[in-house]
Parts: sequence; C-alpha cells; structure tokens
Amino acid sequence: MNTIQSDNYAVYFDNALDELVNFIKKGKYTKFFILTDENTGEHCLPLLTNKLDGLAYDLIEVQSGEENKNIDFCVGVWKMLIDFGADRKSLMINLGGGVITDMGGFAASTYKRGIDFVQVPTTLLSQVDASVGGKTGIDIDGIKNIIGTFTMPKAVFIAHEFLQSLPPRQILSGLAEMLKHGLIVDAAYWTKLKSSDLKNPSVDLVHRSVEIKNEIVLEDPHEKGIRKALNFGHTIGHAVETYSLLHDEDSLSHGEAIAIGMICESYIAHKKAGLTLAELHEIVAVLSNLYPKYTINEDSFDELLLNMQKDKKNVGNEINCTLLTHIGRYSIDNVCTASELCDSLRYYINL
Amino acid sequence: MNTIQSDNYAVYFDNALDELVNFIKKGKYTKFFILTDENTGEHCLPLLTNKLDGLAYDLIEVQSGEENKNIDFCVGVWKMLIDFGADRKSLMINLGGGVITDMGGFAASTYKRGIDFVQVPTTLLSQVDASVGGKTGIDIDGIKNIIGTFTMPKAVFIAHEFLQSLPPRQILSGLAEMLKHGLIVDAAYWTKLKSSDLKNPSVDLVHRSVEIKNEIVLEDPHEKGIRKALNFGHTIGHAVETYSLLHDEDSLSHGEAIAIGMICESYIAHKKAGLTLAELHEIVAVLSNLYPKYTINEDSFDELLLNMQKDKKNVGNEINCTLLTHIGRYSIDNVCTASELCDSLRYYINL
Ligand SMILES: NC(=O)c1ccc[n+]([C@@H]2O[C@H](COP(=O)([O-])OP(=O)(O)OC[C@H]3O[C@@H](n4cnc5c(N)ncnc54)[C@H](O)[C@@H]3O)[C@@H](O)[C@H]2O)c1
Ligand SMILES: NC(=O)c1ccc[n+]([C@@H]2O[C@H](COP(=O)([O-])OP(=O)(O)OC[C@H]3O[C@@H](n4cnc5c(N)ncnc54)[C@H](O)[C@@H]3O)[C@@H](O)[C@H]2O)c1
Ligand SMILES: [Zn+2]
Ligand SMILES: [Zn+2]
Repeated sequence: MNTIQSDNYAVYFDNALDELVNFIKKGKYTKFFILTDENTGEHCLPLLTNKLDGLAYDLIEVQSGEENKNIDFCVGVWKMLIDFGADRKSLMINLGGGVITDMGGFAASTYKRGIDFVQVPTTLLSQVDASVGGKTGIDIDGIKNIIGTFTMPKAVFIAHEFLQSLPPRQILSGLAEMLKHGLIVDAAYWTKLKSSDLKNPSVDLVHRSVEIKNEIVLEDPHEKGIRKALNFGHTIGHAVETYSLLHDEDSLSHGEAIAIGMICESYIAHKKAGLTLAELHEIVAVLSNLYPKYTINEDSFDELLLNMQKDKKNVGNEINCTLLTHIGRYSIDNVCTASELCDSLRYYINL
Repeated sequence: MNTIQSDNYAVYFDNALDELVNFIKKGKYTKFFILTDENTGEHCLPLLTNKLDGLAYDLIEVQSGEENKNIDFCVGVWKMLIDFGADRKSLMINLGGGVITDMGGFAASTYKRGIDFVQVPTTLLSQVDASVGGKTGIDIDGIKNIIGTFTMPKAVFIAHEFLQSLPPRQILSGLAEMLKHGLIVDAAYWTKLKSSDLKNPSVDLVHRSVEIKNEIVLEDPHEKGIRKALNFGHTIGHAVETYSLLHDEDSLSHGEAIAIGMICESYIAHKKAGLTLAELHEIVAVLSNLYPKYTINEDSFDELLLNMQKDKKNVGNEINCTLLTHIGRYSIDNVCTASELCDSLRYYINL
C-alpha cells in the first residue's frame, strides 16, 4: 500500500505501527502522551506498546462514547497534560475512533496554543474519514463538532489489524462513508464495493477511500467549495444523528445516520438534481440491505429541521444539501426547502 | 497616525470607530456580535453604538476580571453564539481589555472551527500588546493562557478615547509593556518615554509601541525565535502574577507584575548578559518611581519557581529568560538557574 501524501503530513498503511514507533523515535519530543478510551486501551494499546520497547509515555484515558466528546472531558485532557508537565515539544498520540481523534486533536491544537499530534485511527470510520482533513472538534449540548479547529496532524498511521476487534456495527458505520466516497466521485469504486465482502473491508478498499477523501480535502482545505462533496448524506444524516443521540437509549452510529441521510438526499437528488430512478433504487437497495430500518415519526420533523438549521454547515436560515447528479457525480450548495426535506424523510419512512 | 499593516490585517488609529463601522458595513456578515464586560459595556459600548445608526447586533456580556478568563465563561460565550444562531459568516467584535480580546478571540477562533473576529482593545495594555500578534487564550486553574490558538483577527481598531475612562492603575499596567518595548529594541523610544507624561500616554506613543510589537511578531509569528524578545520581564513577571492571582485579595495587574519581572531580569542581565550597572540603576529608578513595591517572601520562592517551570514558554525543566545586553538590545533563550532567579528576587525585595 502506498503512503498517501496529504497537506504536509503522510498517511502510512504498511507496517503502520512500526512507522509510528519510528516517528516517535526520530521526533525530538520531550515527552509523549497516548490518548485512549477504555476500549482502545484494551484492544489497541497492547499492539502498540508491544513495539515501544520500553519507551516511556504517559497514558490519558477518557470514557468512550460520543456523549463524552464534550468540553468536560476535554478540560480533563488539558488538566492531565498540565499535571504530566506537557510542554510545547510534547507529542500527543490519539489512539482510537473518531471521538478520540477529534477530541484529542482539539485538545492538542489548543494546548499551549498547539502541540504536535498524530492520529492513529482504530475504527473503520476514523480510518476512512476522520484520519485526513485536519478537522478537530467537540460537541456542546449535543451539537456535533460545534467547537473545533482546522489543524493538521503531523502524521496518520492506519493499522488494518485494529479492525479485528471492532464490533460489526462499527464496521458498518465506517462503511457508510466508503459508500459515500464511491457515490460522490468514483462510480467504479462504488461498483467494486457492492461486490466486496463488506463485513470485512480489505485494506485496499480502506486505502482507496482515504485517497478519495484526501484528494478532496487537499483541493479545498477550509470547506469553501468542493469539500462540501463530502457532506452528501450529512445534512439530513447529522440531524438524525443528533436527534437519536438526544432521544434514544441505544443511539444510531454516525454511519447508520448517514446511510439514512444518503437515502433521503438521493430521493431529493432524484426529484431535482438528475439522479435517475434506477440509480435511486440501486442506492436504496444497497443501503437498505446493509443498514437496519430506523423509526422516524412525523412528529419529529420540526426538531430534525431545527437541527439542520443549527448545523454549522449552514449560513443564515437556508438549508443546503450536496446532491448526486448521477452515481459518481455531485453538485454542492443546493438549497432545499422544508417541504423537500420532509418529503424525503417520508420517502424513507415508507420504504 | 498611519494605519499599521500586520499579518493580513490592518491596525487602525485615525477615526478608529468610524473605520470599524465601515468594516462592519462592507463585510458581508450575516450577523455580528459584540463581546463586552460590565465596564466596557458601560464606558465603551455607548461610544460605538452611537455610530452604528441602528445596525442590529447581539450583545454578549461576561464578567470582568482575569479570574473569569476561564473555560466556564468561554463555554458561556459559545452557548450564547449558538443561541443567537451565529453561523460561519458571523462576525465577533471583542470590545474590551486583554481578557475580552483573548477570550473572545479564542471563542471565535474555535466556534464552528473559526469565525471572523476583530479586536477593539479598550485598555492601554490591550492596545499596545494584546491587539497584534494573533495570540488568543484562556486560563485553566490559574495557569495563564494555557489554552489558546494563534489566529489573526480580521482587523484591529485602536480608539484613543477609550483610555479616558480607564483607571490610573490600568494605564500603569499597559505602560509596563511600552517601557519593555523601548528597553528591548528602541533606546530612543525608552528615552522619550522617560520624559513624557506617563499618566496619559499620547496616541503617538501608543502607535510606536504597536509598531514595535508588530515588527517583532511579523518576523516570528509562532514564537520560534525573536518574538521571545517580548518575553523580557515575563518569565519572572508571569510567575509573580500567577502567584498574586492565587494569594492576594487585590491582586497585581499584569503590568505591575511585569515591572517586577523586568527589575529582576535586569538584575540577572547585569550579572551575566552585559547590562551595565548604570543601566540597571536607570531601569530600577524609572520602574520603582512608577510602580508600588510588592511584598514577596522568601517562603514563596518555591512556588514562584514552580510557576516558572509550568510556564508554557519553557521546554523540559529549564527556565529561560530574555535578557537585556544593553538598553535597546536583547538576547533570548538564556537558561537561568534557580539560584540566579532567587538572587534576583532577593535583589528586588531588598530595593
Ligand atoms: N474529523 C473528521 O473529519 C471526522 C470525520 C468523520 C467523523 N468524525 C467524528 O468521529 C466520531 C465517530 O467516530 P467513531 O465511529 O470511530 O466513534 P468512536 O470513537 O466512538 O468509536 C466507536 C466505538 O468503538 C470503540 N473502538 C474503537 N476502536 C476499537 C477497536 N479497534 N476495537 C474495539 N473497539 C474499538 C470505541 O471505544 C467506541 O466505543 C464522531 O464524533 C464524528 O463527529 C470526525
Ligand atoms: N494576546 C496577547 O498577545 C496578550 C498580550 C498581553 C496581555 N494579554 C492578556 O491581557 C489580559 C490583561 O489585559 P487588560 O489589562 O486589558 O485586562 P482586562 O481586560 O481585565 O481589563 C482591565 C480592567 O479594565 C476594565 N476596562 C477595560 N477597558 C476599560 C475602559 N476603557 N474604561 C474603563 N474600564 C475599562 C475591564 O473591565 C477590567 O476591569 C491578560 O489576560 C493577559 O494574558 C494578552
Ligand atoms: Zn461522516
Ligand atoms: Zn505582557
């Protein structure tokens, strides 16, 4: 697997953990810190410490879960860095899923106005999505990533072996982003995905997804234009995710919510952006086959619309969607009306 | 007064408030927010709203004081932005002293991964120091600016009229930085300051200080090298300030603490960096004449040294000082031993 070159940093695939150890040894850091949650501490940390042969580090563990990607845990991380005496030449290693890489990236990018950090994504989602692009963030009052920075990591290490301990539902969560990558810019990749073993996505597929995401973010690091391609499924998907986080005991994963968003937004795309009925049906078939149906009530539409309005992607009161013009092609900044959005939710409900 | 050009933004002096109103009107912002504390809300906001002729804005007021430059108030600002529906095209106007410009700058630079903000410094200190350089920040557990970003404002507006309502002690606080500017790089400016009415520094003097600070930060935006010139007086001064904030009912202002730091560090400079005895005496005479004596006890030395070690400027366990080699010349990265630092504190105590 080629190393992928991003904006001043590399994304390593082959022998990723050895590369990480090399990176630590070569960098002239005074100290290094590993941020984990209890799951990555159990399943992923041993694979790494195995290779550290005795290099001393400090461990910062936070509780897993999106609901903990908040300012309180972030303050906890900052205080641990203070207590451990982290200085400006310290390195932070974020070992975990997107919650850890986002929050750890934010904590590092603001600690002493910014210390170096590297991302070691351990979920499929964080490998194919959160790993490149430089977005860091935390949630406030359940509003996702409302606070954050654009800060590039010094390197990213994608170790496929971490996926072995990942629950199937987490694999499915990352898969939604991979399918999205195909749908927006690479019809051949979409076709390849459809015929692959999607319960165990190969490292080639992961690599292709990172390549796609990387090409897009390199062209548009601050989300002024084409990066919005990546928002496909996310205007509605994020709103559903926020809703579920507030209301459900066992809330939707990011990918499960995005899968719903992709169905709804494909419906809108069919209505007004050129996506054919056959393409819509193909997308719905693949997604419905992979993802369980989620119950949405008409009574929740107002709250969902409000969530969309509060979304940081939107300016003023308009709600924008990235729509497919065909499989493998997209168009950004499509203003969608409340009635179009509600119709698409109804379409999903009635599937 | 010339407008000073900094890193992609301008610092306006002439008709600064009219320039601000122009800036607001020309910028295609969806909304704008004014951040104040109760004092700038009372004394400064009316001068601005007078000129807004009816332009609608939302006001965010926080409580004044360094002890409120913390994450709780910052979360409060973020939540107000959320509640007021601030989007990515919103503008934040930080109207206040360094507490407001630092915290407001941090809040804006991280809200939705960064919205535009402008600085309208209303204290002498914030005009001559906090206004340029792009440092934003908040304190945690009394550790100053431990969390923050480097983010440039879109513009800075320095209105001399704000200084009229400023208490004399606040004028003195800013003055310490102006004296520092002379001491590190401009002996002629130092001489001019000595013979000026320092209870009411003229706008020319303010302008010269901003020019000096700006030249230094432009050369070294991320504090890798010569920007450390500005740390003169701050290694010891910050430690004393932190100490005072924790222990004193009526704690030292930043400038009062820096004045102490400049005396101590000038003493060290005389001992090992070439500053002559005559120069040391001249510096001590000017500063002692302006600033009240602060009582420091030998018992506090350990805590003061610990504060210096925790300072984000330091790497590893070394304590670094910027020392004067002469009035108007400096040398950075001088490692100072605990005994040198304690000797200099004793020198101050025995003045
Ligand atoms: N920065 C970006 O560009 C970006 C992009 C997409 C998503 N995100 C963010 O990522 C987050 C979601 O990421 P996620 O799905 O990875 O969530 P997550 O970090 O919560 O991980 C999901 C669960 O898997 C566990 N886990 C992680 N690695 C494991 C492993 N190898 N074996 C066993 N268990 C493991 C975690 O402890 C957690 O319980 C969201 O907060 C989202 O906003 C960020
Ligand atoms: N970002 C930087 O580069 C930088 C540089 C230097 C200092 N700072 C920060 O600045 C802060 C200190 O700044 P400060 O001294 O301006 O403190 P401050 O903001 O606390 O202001 C001092 C007091 O004056 C009041 N005030 C402000 N303007 C007034 C006016 N025009 N009339 C009457 N009262 C007024 C305030 O309400 C406050 O009570 C510290 O937190 C320090 O870390 C930042
Ligand atoms: Zn996503
Ligand atoms: Zn200062």
